[in-house]
Amino acid sequence: MPYRAPVSDIRFILDNVVGYDRVSGTEKFAEAGSDMVDAILTEAGRMCDDILAPLQRPGDLHPATLENGVVRTSPGFADGYRAIAEGGWIGMSASPENGGMGLPISLTMAVNDMMSGACLSLQLNPLMTQGQIEALEHHASDEIKALYLPKLISGEWCGTMNLTEPQAGSDVGALRSKAEPNGDGTYAISGQKIYISWGDNDFTENVCHLVLARLPDSVPGTKGISLFMVPKFIPGDDGSLGARNNLRVVSLEHKMGLHGSPTAVMEYDGATGWLVGPENGGMAAMFTMMNNARLGVGLQGIGVAEAAGQHAVAYAADRKQGRAPGTGAIIEHADVRRMLATMKADTFAARSIAMACAVAIDMANATGDANWTARAAFLTPIAKAFGTEVGMNVAAAGVQVHGGMGFIEETGAAQYSRDVRVTAIYEGTNGIQAMDLVGRKLMDGGAAARALLEEVCDGAEVAKATHASLAEPVWHAAETLGELTEWLVAQELTERFGAATAYLEAFARVLGAHAHLKAAMSGDDARQRLATFYITRLLPEVTSLVQQVRSGSEDVMAVTVEDLVA
Amino acid sequence: MPYRAPVSDIRFILDNVVGYDRVSGTEKFAEAGSDMVDAILTEAGRMCDDILAPLQRPGDLHPATLENGVVRTSPGFADGYRAIAEGGWIGMSASPENGGMGLPISLTMAVNDMMSGACLSLQLNPLMTQGQIEALEHHASDEIKALYLPKLISGEWCGTMNLTEPQAGSDVGALRSKAEPNGDGTYAISGQKIYISWGDNDFTENVCHLVLARLPDSVPGTKGISLFMVPKFIPGDDGSLGARNNLRVVSLEHKMGLHGSPTAVMEYDGATGWLVGPENGGMAAMFTMMNNARLGVGLQGIGVAEAAGQHAVAYAADRKQGRAPGTGAIIEHADVRRMLATMKADTFAARSIAMACAVAIDMANATGDANWTARAAFLTPIAKAFGTEVGMNVAAAGVQVHGGMGFIEETGAAQYSRDVRVTAIYEGTNGIQAMDLVGRKLMDGGAAARALLEEVCDGAEVAKATHASLAEPVWHAAETLGELTEWLVAQELTERFGAATAYLEAFARVLGAHAHLKAAMSGDDARQRLATFYITRLLPEVTSLVQQVRSGSEDVMAVTVEDLVA
Repeated sequence: MPYRAPVSDIRFILDNVVGYDRVSGTEKFAEAGSDMVDAILTEAGRMCDDILAPLQRPGDLHPATLENGVVRTSPGFADGYRAIAEGGWIGMSASPENGGMGLPISLTMAVNDMMSGACLSLQLNPLMTQGQIEALEHHASDEIKALYLPKLISGEWCGTMNLTEPQAGSDVGALRSKAEPNGDGTYAISGQKIYISWGDNDFTENVCHLVLARLPDSVPGTKGISLFMVPKFIPGDDGSLGARNNLRVVSLEHKMGLHGSPTAVMEYDGATGWLVGPENGGMAAMFTMMNNARLGVGLQGIGVAEAAGQHAVAYAADRKQGRAPGTGAIIEHADVRRMLATMKADTFAARSIAMACAVAIDMANATGDANWTARAAFLTPIAKAFGTEVGMNVAAAGVQVHGGMGFIEETGAAQYSRDVRVTAIYEGTNGIQAMDLVGRKLMDGGAAARALLEEVCDGAEVAKATHASLAEPVWHAAETLGELTEWLVAQELTERFGAATAYLEAFARVLGAHAHLKAAMSGDDARQRLATFYITRLLPEVTSLVQQVRSGSEDVMAVTVEDLVA
Repeated sequence: MPYRAPVSDIRFILDNVVGYDRVSGTEKFAEAGSDMVDAILTEAGRMCDDILAPLQRPGDLHPATLENGVVRTSPGFADGYRAIAEGGWIGMSASPENGGMGLPISLTMAVNDMMSGACLSLQLNPLMTQGQIEALEHHASDEIKALYLPKLISGEWCGTMNLTEPQAGSDVGALRSKAEPNGDGTYAISGQKIYISWGDNDFTENVCHLVLARLPDSVPGTKGISLFMVPKFIPGDDGSLGARNNLRVVSLEHKMGLHGSPTAVMEYDGATGWLVGPENGGMAAMFTMMNNARLGVGLQGIGVAEAAGQHAVAYAADRKQGRAPGTGAIIEHADVRRMLATMKADTFAARSIAMACAVAIDMANATGDANWTARAAFLTPIAKAFGTEVGMNVAAAGVQVHGGMGFIEETGAAQYSRDVRVTAIYEGTNGIQAMDLVGRKLMDGGAAARALLEEVCDGAEVAKATHASLAEPVWHAAETLGELTEWLVAQELTERFGAATAYLEAFARVLGAHAHLKAAMSGDDARQRLATFYITRLLPEVTSLVQQVRSGSEDVMAVTVEDLVA
C-alpha cells in the first residue's frame, strides 16, 4: 500500500488534543483558522502522496554520489524538491516580509511530519533550511536578511548547519574551525566540518552554509564561538551569483540509511564568510536553529512511524498465514494485533506530544507569555527523544510484522528502520535530550513540569465522570510522576543524569496517556478502543520507569570502566 | 578494538551459573570435563579472534553473488569455512561413529556463540549443517546416515533446510512442493523454496538440501508433509560425486544485513530425493532440526550482543567528549554508562539462559529424565526470543553509544544491528516463540515453569544470608511470576496469546536475575556490581510486564482491523 498522509489524524489532534484553536485565536495567527488548516493539510498531503512518496525507494537504491567534486542527487529528488519549494512549504512560518507565509510552527510541523513519512531523505533538506531561516530572522543583520531570506524561503537556495568537527560532536565547545577578519567586514573561514546533511546538491542555485568557528584570541569553549554565513557562491547585493567560494565537499558518508541525503565532510579553506549575530555569540544563534530543529527531528521520527505503521498494517491485513480466525490474515493473530496496536497508539501519543510542543512555541511567539516559552522548552527534548524512539520502535516492529519479508529490502520495511535510526542521534542524541530535560529544563524547580502534570490531572478529573476506568490510571500516573519530579528536583545533577532517560520516557508515557484520554473523550469509538489499549498496556511501563528513576546514578556508576572493559 | 571471544565469561557461566558439572558428571559426557572444556573454548576462541572476526566487514561489503547460476561467496569465507571444518567445530556434538566428537550440546553452543560474535554470516552455514546432522541422526535410514553424515561432519559437504515457500512461512502446513515416487525408492522433488540460507556456495564439494514436500494424495496441512534429502550432486555409494541434480539457485535476496550469507530462492524441477523418516512424518524430523536450531539462533543473538558490546565499550572508553569527569571519555557520562551496563548485564543474562537450556538438553540426552526434556523444551523459546531481542537491543545501543559515527558504516556498529535483525525472525519469529511458550509449553499445566521458578526461589533463599538486598527482589519477582503462571494456565489459549510476548519477557527477566544472583554469590566484586545493576534497574520491568500479561487479549483484540487500517 502506498503512503497516505495522515491528514485526518493530524487534524483530529489539532482540534481535540492540543487545542490549536488557541493559536488561531491569537491576533498574530488569526488567519490560520480552520479553513486555512484544511487547505494546507490537504494540499501538502496530496504532494506527499503523489510526488514525494514515490521517491522513497529510489533514494535508497541510488544514493547521492560525489563525482569530481559535484554532488549528484538521487533520481527524482530535484523534481520533488521543486514541488516542495513551489508549494511554499519551506517558508511556511517565515516572515511574510521576505516571502514567507507567517503561519504557525504547528502547521509547519504538521507538513514536516507528512513529508518525513513520504520521503525522509529529501525532507531533511528543507528542514535544514527552515532552521537557517529562523536563525537568520533572529540574529542576522538587515543586509544578510534582505539578501538571503527571500532566496531561502522561495527554495532557490537552501541552507545547512555546520557544527560538528571530528573532535567536537556533542561537545560543540571543542570545535577548532577558524575565522580571520579580512579587514573588509568579511572573515576567512577555515576548517573541516563533518556530518553536514545536504552539504551540497544539484538542484538549488546556491547552498548557504551556517558555520560555527572561532575568532582569533577567542576564549576556549562555547563562549568563544561565532556564527558565519558562508555561501557556496558569493552573491552580489542583488542576489545574483558571483564567484565560487573556497569551500568544497571532501567526501560523502556511507551510511546505514538515509542514502538519498548526502552527508558531507566539508572543507573550508579561507572561504569568505559574514558574521551572523555578535562576535562570540554563535551558541545562542545555534540554539535558535537547533531548538525547532529538535522538534522537527522528533516529527521526522513520527512521520516515519506513520509510514512504517501503514505499511505493516497493509501487509498484515493482506498476508494469509496459519489458522487465524476471521479473515485468515496475520492481523487476526493476537500477537500481531498487539504489535500493530502498539505502533498506532504510540504514533498517536508521540504526535500529540510534538504538536503540543509546537502549539506552545506558537503561543509563546504570539503572546510573549513566559509560561508558554517554558512549556515549549520543557516539551522539546521529550518530543525529540520520544518521537524518534517511537520512530525506531515502530519501524522495527514493522519489520517484525513482515516476517522474513521484512529482512528483504524490496518490501521497504527495512528501509524505514535504517533511515529513522539517525534521528535518535542527530540534533543532540536522545541521551543528550534526557540530560537537557533533567538538567536545564528542571532548573525552574520543576515549575514547567508541574504545570503540565496539573493539566493532565485536571483532564483526568473531567474524564472521570464518563470514562472512569481510563481516567483513574492516568490521574494516578500523573500524581506519581509529580511526586517523582519533586524528588528528582531535590537530587544533585550527577544523580539525575543516571535517571534521565527513564524520567523522559515516563513523562512521555504520561503525556501520551493524556492525549489518548482526550481522544477517547471525543466520542469516537475507534479512538476510545486505542486509548483503552494504550492506557491498559503501555501506560503501566511508568511503574518500572519510576523505579529506575529512583535508582538514580548509584547502581550505574558503581559498574566501573574496568568492569565494562573486562 | 577487534573482537575477543568471551572465553572466560562462558567458562564462568558453565561453572558458576548453569551447573555444567552435572553434564560432565554423567557417564555419557564423562570425557567433557574441565580440561576438555578449557581446551575447546581456548582453541575455538583463538580461531574466532584470528580467522573469523576479520571476515566480518568483507562479508558485508562484498555480499555473496550469483553469477551464471553459481554462487560466489565473500572474500575469505572459503578459508574461514575451512578453519571451522578442520577444527572439527561443525560436528562437535555429532556421533563419534561418523566422525563426530560426541561432545555435549553445551559446548557446541558455546563455540557457536563465539563464532556468531566473530562473523555471523559465515557461522550460519555450519549452524544449518548441525541441524541437518541431528535430523539425519534421528530420522534417516542407515544407508543415508552412512553416506552423508561423515561428509557433513567433516565439512566436506554442508547442509541446508528447505521449509518456506512464498505462501507457507510460519504456516509450514501450507506448503505445496511435490514428491513423486520414481519407482526405484527415490522421489522426484518439484517446487520452489525461499529464504534458503546458504542455498549454495563455492567452498564445499556438495550441498545437501533437506526439503519438505508432499507425496501424492497426502492429507492437507502438516500431517501430509514428508522430508527428503536432495543433494546438489548425487553421490555414489562410496561418497564420490555423480550427476548434477535438477535443482538450482534462482536468485539471491537483497537483504538488510547478513550480506555474506547467500539467501537463495531454490527451484527443484524433478530433482532426485531420498525419503528421510517415514512418509508423512516430515514435521517430526523438522522439529528435531528446528529445536536446537532455535537455541542456536538465540546464541547468534547473544554472540552479536557480545561483539557489539565490546565494540561500543572500546569506543566509549576512547572517545573524549564534553566535560566528563575521570578520564574525560564518554564512558564517564552516567547515561552512556547506563547503556553499556545494560548491554553487558543483558548479554550475561541471555547467555546464562541459553546455556541453561543447553545443559538441560545434554542432561536429557545423558539421563533420559523427562524433567530435563521438559525443561529444555520450556527454555528453548525463551532462549531464542530473549537471546535475539538482547542481540537487537544491544546492537542498537551500540550504534547509539557511537553517536554520529554509529550511523556511518565504516565503524561496523551499524552492521551488527543490521545483521542481527533477522535472528528475531527466522527459525520461528519471536512472536511464534512466545505463542509456543504459552501454548504448547504450558500444556503440562505449568509444571516445567514451576520447577524453574522453585529453583529461582531456592537460590534466592540461599542468597538471603549473604546478599539479602539482591536476593529479596529476585525471590519476590519469582513468586509473582509463579502466581502469574498459575493464572495464565487457567486462561483460554486465545487469552494467552495476547499475553504471550510479555510473559516470555517477564520469565526471561526473572531467569536473568537468577543468573546474576548466582554470579554475585561467586564472590567476584565486578560481577556483584553488575548483578546489583541488573536487579535494581532491569528486573523491575517485571512489574509492568505482569500487568500486561494480566490484560490478556481483550484490550488487544478490541482494536479492530478497521481501527488499524483507518
